Amino acid sequence: MSENVVVLLLLMQISNNYCARNELNIFLFSGHYEFVDLTHSFDNETIYWPNSLNFVFVKKIEELGADGSWYAANDFTAGEHGGTHLDAPYHFYRGGLHAGELPLEKLIVPLVIVDMSAKVNDDPNFVLYKEHLDYILNDNNGKPCIIIFKFGWSKYFNDRKKYLGLAENSNELNFPGLSEEVAKWITSSYKNVVGLGVDVASVDPGSSKQFPVHKITSRHGLYNIENVNLNRDIPEYGCTALVLPMKIKLGTGAPLRLVAICPKEQ
Amino acid sequence: MSENVVVLLLLMQISNNYCARNELNIFLFSGHYEFVDLTHSFDNETIYWPNSLNFVFVKKIEELGADGSWYAANDFTAGEHGGTHLDAPYHFYRGGLHAGELPLEKLIVPLVIVDMSAKVNDDPNFVLYKEHLDYILNDNNGKPCIIIFKFGWSKYFNDRKKYLGLAENSNELNFPGLSEEVAKWITSSYKNVVGLGVDVASVDPGSSKQFPVHKITSRHGLYNIENVNLNRDIPEYGCTALVLPMKIKLGTGAPLRLVAICPKEQ
Repeated sequence: MSENVVVLLLLMQISNNYCARNELNIFLFSGHYEFVDLTHSFDNETIYWPNSLNFVFVKKIEELGADGSWYAANDFTAGEHGGTHLDAPYHFYRGGLHAGELPLEKLIVPLVIVDMSAKVNDDPNFVLYKEHLDYILNDNNGKPCIIIFKFGWSKYFNDRKKYLGLAENSNELNFPGLSEEVAKWITSSYKNVVGLGVDVASVDPGSSKQFPVHKITSRHGLYNIENVNLNRDIPEYGCTALVLPMKIKLGTGAPLRLVAICPKEQ
Repeated sequence: MSENVVVLLLLMQISNNYCARNELNIFLFSGHYEFVDLTHSFDNETIYWPNSLNFVFVKKIEELGADGSWYAANDFTAGEHGGTHLDAPYHFYRGGLHAGELPLEKLIVPLVIVDMSAKVNDDPNFVLYKEHLDYILNDNNGKPCIIIFKFGWSKYFNDRKKYLGLAENSNELNFPGLSEEVAKWITSSYKNVVGLGVDVASVDPGSSKQFPVHKITSRHGLYNIENVNLNRDIPEYGCTALVLPMKIKLGTGAPLRLVAICPKEQ
């Protein structure tokens, strides 16, 4: 760390160009951090919940002018809750905030990754209980943060049937998720956690009918992030999350651009 | 600055909670920075270009269960180019990147605000020429950055007719913008500038028919940001821009969440 501080001080001294002159910009663009996109792209293949309105991309204009000029523009339709997206507390709690009302102080926060993928071991019936977490969540004095649980499911995102665990001839789903116990435990014991994320289609397991995790987190003012793209490994601690949803004023949720700023491995 | 560094070092030493333990998180959440939303909300009133598909918000379900549980979800349709949004280089240049292809290194960058609002003085015919800028753009050694030009137009965003300068009984528009001269000058002399922004509906003036600024910036790989919400003043130098569009893979543009991280005034 002391080496970084020396580098920082040197950079502060030698830099005098207007594009980067202030401490945060010097720090952020020092070469010690990288930006990692945790977002799946939106196109006509993006995974949505069964019976939800999918993202549909309509090519409107692509025009090559006589003078060689080019103009292209498109329209799209979408449900709020598909692809990499945010669930606002209002989604499952009438008194909760809408997507466009969440304060930035809850959206730009330290990021904790809890990697359960080895324990899940591709089992769609895996449910995360408190016993799985005893080794990590032993600190309740922190500043606001979000926790993203990695089940190892992002690798299936291009195979809708496998990703959702769709049964033949029905809309029954089967993929890993959090237990009611874990949601209660986090919201009661870890007041600094402002949001939860998962690399599956729902914070509740695919087989859930009552969605207790959604109900508990929403009632406590936490947002949920679903379909996080964790195809790339990032450090479990030390990254900063940029959780920036489309600002749909009264949205129950919204398409999300999720980015992690992480220290580069030395 | 030396005082900030002392504070930083102290914070590094006393902090040992997992939510914030790494240098960037300590720096960012030290209390010396604030997050400023430069985004207009999306709802059925959000301003789109004439003849564009507006943002239309469809309330799908709002359901209070017999057990007191709540569930709400919506759909929406939109053109890519309305409200606070990003124009990808592909919008006006066939060889340019799409919205979902822009690298994060061009989207998280130092932010320069050029405040022309006093010079514009509410005149919708104002066009920005190089002579207006001689006092600022005298440095070409910087790291990547974006420049957002403030014409003082955000205050009209709730009045579509005034904001767009719509003529009676026609789709003729009239609002301030950049000259072709300025676009050529920036793209030829300031290679570190990766994007331009404005607090009006287009980087070209409302009366433009040929859109030279769009064509020049697109061809040089710059993105444009339109309808920036500058109702709140932020420092002209020293902020960091988070330019995070909805990740529409082949979008010519996309709804944008635009946030500035700024040093708090002492």
